[in-house]
Amino acid sequence: MVAKAIFYHAGCPVCVAAEHTVANAIDRSKYQVEIVHLGTDKSRVAEAEAAGVKSVPALVMDGAAFHINFGAGIEVLK
Amino acid sequence: MVAKAIFYHAGCPVCVAAEHTVANAIDRSKYQVEIVHLGTDKSRVAEAEAAGVKSVPALVMDGAAFHINFGAGIEVLK
Repeated sequence: MVAKAIFYHAGCPVCVAAEHTVANAIDRSKYQVEIVHLGTDKSRVAEAEAAGVKSVPALVMDGAAFHINFGAGIEVLK
Repeated sequence: MVAKAIFYHAGCPVCVAAEHTVANAIDRSKYQVEIVHLGTDKSRVAEAEAAGVKSVPALVMDGAAFHINFGAGIEVLK
């Protein structure tokens, strides 16, 4: 079964690097990866916060939030 | 061609979660993943630092260091 992984970002350089490398390296036979730009899709900030996202870029997988380096705090995206 | 990815950790709970989820999700057809425990293999701390690792857990891929959440600073592993 393919699980879902969500990569939240805000278009920042740190986010782009993480997307191109880490998110892109995820095995698509194990995870369906959705890329969400919280800067342009503010309606999903609450969902990201509920999943434990405190900054972007972050990857939510298997019910946990994994912050990858630090691009921006989620507070500035509201 | 399969590139190399190195996951540096120190056995901490944050490290274990990142290893089981993020490191484990990496597509093995794209990356050969090496797992390095810096707590037990201190000879590799200098190599990790040279690659830009400032804390563990961290993933070094494509020449860049991606810190995943925060388990421990590299200073305490020396």
